[in-house]
Amino acid sequence: MRIGAIEAGGTKFVCGIGNEHGAIEERISFPTTTPDETVGKAIAYFKDKAADAIGIGSFGPIDPNPDSPTYGYVTTTPKPGWTNFNFLGAMRAAFDVPLGWDTDVNAAALGEATWGAARGLDSCIYFTIGTGVGAGVYVEGKLAHGLVHPEVGHILIRRHPDDAYEGFCPYHRDCLEGVAAGPAIERRWGVKGSELAPEHEAWKLEAYYIAQAVVNAVLIVSPMKVVLGGGVMHQRQLFPMIRDEVQRLLNGYVSHDALRQGIGDYIVPPGLGDDAGLAGALALGVAAARR
Amino acid sequence: MRIGAIEAGGTKFVCGIGNEHGAIEERISFPTTTPDETVGKAIAYFKDKAADAIGIGSFGPIDPNPDSPTYGYVTTTPKPGWTNFNFLGAMRAAFDVPLGWDTDVNAAALGEATWGAARGLDSCIYFTIGTGVGAGVYVEGKLAHGLVHPEVGHILIRRHPDDAYEGFCPYHRDCLEGVAAGPAIERRWGVKGSELAPEHEAWKLEAYYIAQAVVNAVLIVSPMKVVLGGGVMHQRQLFPMIRDEVQRLLNGYVSHDALRQGIGDYIVPPGLGDDAGLAGALALGVAAARR
Repeated sequence: MRIGAIEAGGTKFVCGIGNEHGAIEERISFPTTTPDETVGKAIAYFKDKAADAIGIGSFGPIDPNPDSPTYGYVTTTPKPGWTNFNFLGAMRAAFDVPLGWDTDVNAAALGEATWGAARGLDSCIYFTIGTGVGAGVYVEGKLAHGLVHPEVGHILIRRHPDDAYEGFCPYHRDCLEGVAAGPAIERRWGVKGSELAPEHEAWKLEAYYIAQAVVNAVLIVSPMKVVLGGGVMHQRQLFPMIRDEVQRLLNGYVSHDALRQGIGDYIVPPGLGDDAGLAGALALGVAAARR
Repeated sequence: MRIGAIEAGGTKFVCGIGNEHGAIEERISFPTTTPDETVGKAIAYFKDKAADAIGIGSFGPIDPNPDSPTYGYVTTTPKPGWTNFNFLGAMRAAFDVPLGWDTDVNAAALGEATWGAARGLDSCIYFTIGTGVGAGVYVEGKLAHGLVHPEVGHILIRRHPDDAYEGFCPYHRDCLEGVAAGPAIERRWGVKGSELAPEHEAWKLEAYYIAQAVVNAVLIVSPMKVVLGGGVMHQRQLFPMIRDEVQRLLNGYVSHDALRQGIGDYIVPPGLGDDAGLAGALALGVAAARR
């Protein structure tokens, strides 16, 4: 099969062509501007690619409910021009092939469960920690949607006693995203995270916040694998710090080797690396082709 | 069909017989003592009932993984005598019928999704707030298990600034259960919650803690219905207080009517009332019979 994939981010779009084994053959990327221009470029890219199906993992919030009149829309995003944009409709008008549609992070979770770090498992959670924080939730072999879709970036966490930064989330101020996303690191320390040394105390706070998110996810959905991706997680020193914090916070309560000796193999980077998003969209396309 | 049901609680067992429509025809209950005596009474009860299947919703932690060598065990419970007790094995030795097996709270979630407040929906979360706190998680038409099973009672929440009580959880001190379960109310105020007036400030703290659990559950699994059961939730004044707190904490972020005007129909008591646990076990039995 020839499957198209769109990783539709708020900053940039990546479009590619791959196959049902997760191999990505080619790709292009361009900045996210207006919906017409950006989706226009995606349509132009796929026009002569003869894809059997196309999967779209989109920034959100989106409407992922096939029974809803606004299915396929980007909904209440503050991103100029994109509010209530019928993304899937624009694609459907251009291509008469099965289209897969979900959040970017649900797509990445599916990609990791299909070809990546959670391959062969029937549950995982995929976090991205970058400009924002989000997570895709895969439970009992299905992506979670429910009422809308998970919005894990905004969970409430405890403040670290050494953290005086007030948080930047316009809705919740100091929710997870408000204190742990890239902009929080930059505003707290006055420089970008990428410019801070690996032993800087910034990472202690970061590990504390991310660990709380992992702990609450473990206690609420009990995923078989926790995958941590996104720009902030390029700071690889965070992984052992987060694992230690998770063990400290759980304090032995959940009795499973994955949370004891096995934790190094439980809280992991994306198996698909920085391709997790595009491969996830590809996995949505493969699923659409097989429906 | 004639279906047996066991609501196996840490304090008491309820056994009953019902049918595939959720009607419970008869029941008995007895205190939870030793495994041999307690399960022995359950076996004696069902001996002449000619059940086509029996569902068991058990206190835990339990092993709900059919591929595990300890499937069907109550595992690391501190309850004397029950640690690593092969509950399902004891039932299997006595009855040659399909047996359903899950946590008491997952059973209740399934019961609510089958016949109760979440009837017809493909997701819900069922909280019980009583001597302990727990939740069953139903996602995309399936009960969540994953690594073990959800242990929502122990999520980390923010302390209310007016709350000086330190929490009683032996693992985490002031996790959700540690500050919001019945014993926390009793230790904080010196009397049982049932003796406190509906306008007592105890309920303000309680609503704040339970609302945080609801908010984090909404953000992590996006359930179509939040069902709040258990002894503490007999304090019906808590429902409007929790709904208000949830709206205040989410601050409009999740854009769905269920969290706005519809919240009175979103955060609700069990549709099955105090039968949620036994009816849930019945639902597990029905599912086992149909497998």
